[in-house]
Amino acid sequence: MPNAYQSMSTESLDEEIKHLETEVAHLRDQHLKLDMARGKPSPQQTALSKPMLDVLDSSTPLVDGDAIVDNYGTPEGLPSARRLAGQILGVDPKNVVVSGSSSLNLMHDLVAHAFINGVAGAEPFYRQGEVKWLCPAPGYDRHFKVTESMGIKNVPIPMCEDGPDMDTVCELVEGDPTVKGIWCVPKYANPTGITYSDEVVRAFASLKPAAPDFRIYWDNAYVVHCFGGTDDQLLDIFQAVREAGNRNLVYEFGSTAKVTFPSSGIAFVAASDDDISEVRKAFSVERVSSEKMSQLAHALYLRDLDGVRAHMRKHAAIVAPRFALVQSKLGEGLGSLGVATWSNPHGGYFVSFEGPKGSAKRIVALMADLGVKLTPAGATWPYGKDPNDSNIRIAPTYPSLEDLGQALDVFVVAVKLVSAKIAREERG
Amino acid sequence: MPNAYQSMSTESLDEEIKHLETEVAHLRDQHLKLDMARGKPSPQQTALSKPMLDVLDSSTPLVDGDAIVDNYGTPEGLPSARRLAGQILGVDPKNVVVSGSSSLNLMHDLVAHAFINGVAGAEPFYRQGEVKWLCPAPGYDRHFKVTESMGIKNVPIPMCEDGPDMDTVCELVEGDPTVKGIWCVPKYANPTGITYSDEVVRAFASLKPAAPDFRIYWDNAYVVHCFGGTDDQLLDIFQAVREAGNRNLVYEFGSTAKVTFPSSGIAFVAASDDDISEVRKAFSVERVSSEKMSQLAHALYLRDLDGVRAHMRKHAAIVAPRFALVQSKLGEGLGSLGVATWSNPHGGYFVSFEGPKGSAKRIVALMADLGVKLTPAGATWPYGKDPNDSNIRIAPTYPSLEDLGQALDVFVVAVKLVSAKIAREERG
Repeated sequence: MPNAYQSMSTESLDEEIKHLETEVAHLRDQHLKLDMARGKPSPQQTALSKPMLDVLDSSTPLVDGDAIVDNYGTPEGLPSARRLAGQILGVDPKNVVVSGSSSLNLMHDLVAHAFINGVAGAEPFYRQGEVKWLCPAPGYDRHFKVTESMGIKNVPIPMCEDGPDMDTVCELVEGDPTVKGIWCVPKYANPTGITYSDEVVRAFASLKPAAPDFRIYWDNAYVVHCFGGTDDQLLDIFQAVREAGNRNLVYEFGSTAKVTFPSSGIAFVAASDDDISEVRKAFSVERVSSEKMSQLAHALYLRDLDGVRAHMRKHAAIVAPRFALVQSKLGEGLGSLGVATWSNPHGGYFVSFEGPKGSAKRIVALMADLGVKLTPAGATWPYGKDPNDSNIRIAPTYPSLEDLGQALDVFVVAVKLVSAKIAREERG
Repeated sequence: MPNAYQSMSTESLDEEIKHLETEVAHLRDQHLKLDMARGKPSPQQTALSKPMLDVLDSSTPLVDGDAIVDNYGTPEGLPSARRLAGQILGVDPKNVVVSGSSSLNLMHDLVAHAFINGVAGAEPFYRQGEVKWLCPAPGYDRHFKVTESMGIKNVPIPMCEDGPDMDTVCELVEGDPTVKGIWCVPKYANPTGITYSDEVVRAFASLKPAAPDFRIYWDNAYVVHCFGGTDDQLLDIFQAVREAGNRNLVYEFGSTAKVTFPSSGIAFVAASDDDISEVRKAFSVERVSSEKMSQLAHALYLRDLDGVRAHMRKHAAIVAPRFALVQSKLGEGLGSLGVATWSNPHGGYFVSFEGPKGSAKRIVALMADLGVKLTPAGATWPYGKDPNDSNIRIAPTYPSLEDLGQALDVFVVAVKLVSAKIAREERG
């Protein structure tokens, strides 16, 4: 169906473009400096966790079960931190390692381990010739960068409403022994905001990989990050793996980066008995032991899953109005034009925006010109190459509501102008 | 010169062995459980830093210069933490990255980066066929493990009184392009306790490596860890490199693991302008940003080098008597026998003990049998292979003075018995 600009007479369209260019000129004169680029909690959100800085002081007993907090040891993480992480991911603490403050760093280190040492007794990647990694796209740019940086070939996989296109995933994973992994954000996916359906999770759990060293990198970054009414329900991947008669297939990751403090949260990985034992062995060479004061503070402050959920409700109260504003501004500004679609997630940190083919780079460039920073167009695709050049990731959490409203107003004008120009160019 | 047992008549020697075996039997009956295995601060030492847990609370402003502490960003480390680390290492903060809590982890990640991506534009190690790493031995077992785990060939280098044998180092580094690095603990070396002489540091700084991707891994772990009267003076390696007309040659590492809390300190790396820029680029893929609360707490608590030195004097007061006890017990128990030598360092965490050839494994096994845990014999050599089987690393800091005294008494008996038996076996 043609969009509003495509349906206009050329005369009206030229007039509309002129009108929009005037609007843009006005906006340029305002010398805005706004940022909708990265999924960062706002200062209001990080302030929620300041009381965590009060839980440790010089009188706190620095023991945790059998573990000594203030000396070397316990590289698998403090018992209380593993219990907390286990509750967040819904797995047995014995299958969890808590280490460092960045789950991306854990993912990187496991891909590097596979590259240098090999996984599950297989040859290291570097001795296997070209290896491939599946990248549901649009997806998380930093995931793609980890595998790209090691020379692993990133293969884009179409994202559907209920998760990655599992027919394609299944065909590649089961048919091609050079496929060694897949990046997944199964709940409130970055950036589309969808949660994988039970069918998709079961299809993942039932995979019979051609490569014994294939692993699913299940980055459950937004597992407790619902801000809408009803929390999406994600099937337990490890349970599904067991039911499918599979065993060593999944590394699951999580962190409190967007629960407490970004960059100063706790990060964790969970896996099957065999896999977690290999993870611990790999980490024993590279990590003497991890930051345990932060682990203790988290365990004492958040306590358990109920504590986490109560804390996340405070985040939701701050985040929800921002996402609502995205919906209302885009709906009012673009809803009737038929030029774009956008996601309306119940959780996570992003709205995924689809404009006309060939529009994303131009919109992002125009926005930059008007003083509003967006995630670079294409970033949500492997190698930064969005085949349609149509996807833009909107990150509404960091700006104040007022700034966000202003940024979205600019965005609406930019989308309209670029869409109108594209419609005009189609006519030659 | 023959030792006391070698000089005895066979009859006296047999009698002495019988006597020592009775002593050993008595010790075995005591069912001791003592540990002189790893370089861990004692609980008294870690307690010194408990006040650091009071410096951050919910009222602390979470900014540091231009940096935001409680959100993403500043992956190179907080300005105040880089300033502190720069003062500890004696380098410009702009050449420092502070990240994570483990300097070993930083070293691992840089070797892994060289392995997977290559250093300074060179091919990654994995594409270069066999590569080698120089390992002054006795040295630090965890260093050797990092390169060993990547299949890099560890080459032992003799350690002298003033540092590694630089003739051998020079010949290998300048003559063999497959030599890519060397592990160094230049001050209060692990385990010998020596500090590299100015001549050795200058020889390192003047190296003209055959490989452009050769780097010196200068692990200055004990830079502020003097416990004796006069602090050893280590020449500034970067200054020496500049004076030698060299440029990109050295990664220097440090941490506060043995200043504040092991496993919860701050870790840092310093390098030339070019090298640190490459380090930051490499880390940008694998580390979103690092634990900044801990960095802020360290900077506020330790403040500057004067603060660090004042704090280390408190450590010295606890550590010095333990090292003195090692000297007196070994001197009294073994001094007149001529069976062994041992180091008498002014700082660091270890005493290096040299027994008769072929004695180390037997002594460590006998000690284990008597309930005293030592670092495994050979651990201070690449692949755990001490060619003389004579070196034992004594780590006296963790046990209480009373436990340490007891452990050393057992050690003296064990050394005597094994040395006497070896003397007896030599006679056939």
